Amino acid sequence: MKIAIDAMGGDNGSKPIVEAIKEFLKDNKDVEIIVFGKEVELQELTSLCRVVNAPDIVPMEAGALEVLRMKNSSMCKAVSTMKEEGFDAVVSAGSTGGFLSAATLILKTVPGVKRSCLVTCFPTKIKGKKVTVLDVGANNENNAEELVQFAYMGKAYNQALFATKEPKTYLLSNGAEEHKGSPLVKEAHKLLKEKNFEGFQGNMEARDVLNGDADIIVADGFSGNVMLKGMEGIAKMMSGMIKKNFKKNLWTKLGYLHVRKGFKDMSETMDYKSTGGAMLLGINGVVVKAHGNSDAYSFKSALKVAKQMVDFDVVNKIRESLKDEQRL
Amino acid sequence: MKIAIDAMGGDNGSKPIVEAIKEFLKDNKDVEIIVFGKEVELQELTSLCRVVNAPDIVPMEAGALEVLRMKNSSMCKAVSTMKEEGFDAVVSAGSTGGFLSAATLILKTVPGVKRSCLVTCFPTKIKGKKVTVLDVGANNENNAEELVQFAYMGKAYNQALFATKEPKTYLLSNGAEEHKGSPLVKEAHKLLKEKNFEGFQGNMEARDVLNGDADIIVADGFSGNVMLKGMEGIAKMMSGMIKKNFKKNLWTKLGYLHVRKGFKDMSETMDYKSTGGAMLLGINGVVVKAHGNSDAYSFKSALKVAKQMVDFDVVNKIRESLKDEQRL
Repeated sequence: MKIAIDAMGGDNGSKPIVEAIKEFLKDNKDVEIIVFGKEVELQELTSLCRVVNAPDIVPMEAGALEVLRMKNSSMCKAVSTMKEEGFDAVVSAGSTGGFLSAATLILKTVPGVKRSCLVTCFPTKIKGKKVTVLDVGANNENNAEELVQFAYMGKAYNQALFATKEPKTYLLSNGAEEHKGSPLVKEAHKLLKEKNFEGFQGNMEARDVLNGDADIIVADGFSGNVMLKGMEGIAKMMSGMIKKNFKKNLWTKLGYLHVRKGFKDMSETMDYKSTGGAMLLGINGVVVKAHGNSDAYSFKSALKVAKQMVDFDVVNKIRESLKDEQRL
Repeated sequence: MKIAIDAMGGDNGSKPIVEAIKEFLKDNKDVEIIVFGKEVELQELTSLCRVVNAPDIVPMEAGALEVLRMKNSSMCKAVSTMKEEGFDAVVSAGSTGGFLSAATLILKTVPGVKRSCLVTCFPTKIKGKKVTVLDVGANNENNAEELVQFAYMGKAYNQALFATKEPKTYLLSNGAEEHKGSPLVKEAHKLLKEKNFEGFQGNMEARDVLNGDADIIVADGFSGNVMLKGMEGIAKMMSGMIKKNFKKNLWTKLGYLHVRKGFKDMSETMDYKSTGGAMLLGINGVVVKAHGNSDAYSFKSALKVAKQMVDFDVVNKIRESLKDEQRL
């Protein structure tokens, strides 16, 4: 297995990424890593893996054309070398827009895919169970046919990751009833029913997404992004309040000692860093976007996700599941 | 001031509503209350206010036409009597869809308003500061002109409630930069800039909505609803985890004693019940939708919001602010 890594572009520079690669290679000696970035910053890695000098960094706000023009950027070079040399996966913590553009334009979408989409997993009330949500932000707008494809791709991803037999799939909506929803949701609902999509359960409101019932939530890229970031925002606010409550004085610190374990478990459950970022589905190759502000732990999680997706052959599973879709 | 109340239709029956009215009247002797519902369940109130027998309950899933046909329902009668006798406000904890339909069709929208919308307030990181969010679910879909009107209506509401001079207004988007967003957000952004909308600050991602910078967040009804309910869902999940952590055993209960005050403050800050539900803006009259699962405290908060909105003459303020919009 060969994984290309863009070592630049994350908010915290190359340091945590170098750390993550070293850690990852300890547990995964069978994986070949090729790292792209400023050579001088990657000295520590030269004995462990191939290092390719690609000193330019794609800025956070770069548009699609700008990215492609930056041929010597670590991001562009990682993606194009992946294509040329047939690597299995590419991972970057750089600009989301830039990375999605580069991956889509260089690696191309799987035949039949109308739009690629970003998928990630959220924790749920049920310990250990995660819910797969897509699209969380690759698209600004989607039509009903695209949502239907997201359902097929989400199923392949969910089955690869969790070995679910018939994952329960819902459409994100503003009401659970069949007749509720935006015109887009209503149309996608109709199409999924017509196709007898296995495991389709109907609509789900955002407030129920984490209750553990759903395996997969399908949304357009804008709404999915709003839900993801809205949840992230309030979770961060509440975590901040909890910390402040415990740090107030000697008494509250003493109180913390009594409940430390429970709150540590809780923050692990809620920690988005452990999810390892999001994967871009519908592309020829495994493309994983790590969080922009990745630390070593978070970037290592992203590498693990990439490996798992290659192991489970998720790209081919998507190819097959889209054949199913077209047959119906 | 005269307020009509639909005492039926909430998830918990008329009991908490009767309780709330009694409490509210203790502090607001100058307000005249007219209650609609099953007379037998409202005996306690007959000495305190006018009680009108309207025994039918609009079911949670009733459509617009169905509601209007239910002339003897507590909800319909409250709204239609409000119109006939010129009350200032109406409050209900019943079916959201039914209540919005009845209010819109019977009371009619303010001249010039394209679509009414639901507005509510969220807590923020800054103690005591709330952020006004609209539309949180009156519409399944909106166009850019409607979003612009929401900005005008939101401003009138925010200024009435918090006496802000020039509230900072943002569009909810999937990226903060001007060129980001759905086609709808981009178009609304352009229109607000063209109109030189005072206080318009650009786009905001859902993760920053609670950071205290924004006074007003403008969204289409679908996205606003997804954000509201997504935040509600994760806040509930985290609160459940916190409670469980403290209740585990004698030690953790002891720990709770040390931090009780902080966590009580926190749950008060996060408590959506204290926001008193949502107001339907753009209608001829103050229309407040209390939470479906209102307890007495929550319904009393909704009554307080209704009173405040009448005191601040918010309906006329909206009328004036829309004149401003049309002038531009």
